[in-house]
Amino acid sequence: MGFMKARVYVSMKPTVLDPQGQTIRSALAGLGHTSIAAVRQGKYFEITLEPGTDRGKAGAEIDQIARDVLANPVIEEYRVEFVE
Amino acid sequence: MGFMKARVYVSMKPTVLDPQGQTIRSALAGLGHTSIAAVRQGKYFEITLEPGTDRGKAGAEIDQIARDVLANPVIEEYRVEFVE
Repeated sequence: MGFMKARVYVSMKPTVLDPQGQTIRSALAGLGHTSIAAVRQGKYFEITLEPGTDRGKAGAEIDQIARDVLANPVIEEYRVEFVE
Repeated sequence: MGFMKARVYVSMKPTVLDPQGQTIRSALAGLGHTSIAAVRQGKYFEITLEPGTDRGKAGAEIDQIARDVLANPVIEEYRVEFVE
């Protein structure tokens, strides 16, 4: 049996300023990449679950982990996706 | 016409140790999340292209940006995905 994996993507809410992304955008413009309108940076977590973990239980658990530990829901939003 | 967006995911190569991910895994175990076998952390960039940018040209440009600016190919790998 293969390992079940979940991917959690955390990014700033669209209304929150992202100075890291703005800095990358300026640097890219300086390098001649003028077709880039905006860059926003986020975090990405790949979580491997123990073999035999129930898919439904895992979904609820990963969602709780994303909300409570990986993201700050005041300024960030997250997206969970299961692979395998 | 809508804006074309690309997402770039950067993560450590599987052979490279990821101390950030290991720390998160230990913290989760301490919180009672014992079904988590491993965590690896990466970066995520959402890049918005100027309207009218050619899709083929954009693909090559984003790939070059990922390789040269966003990722360190010695220890990291990346994945590009277009949306919209």
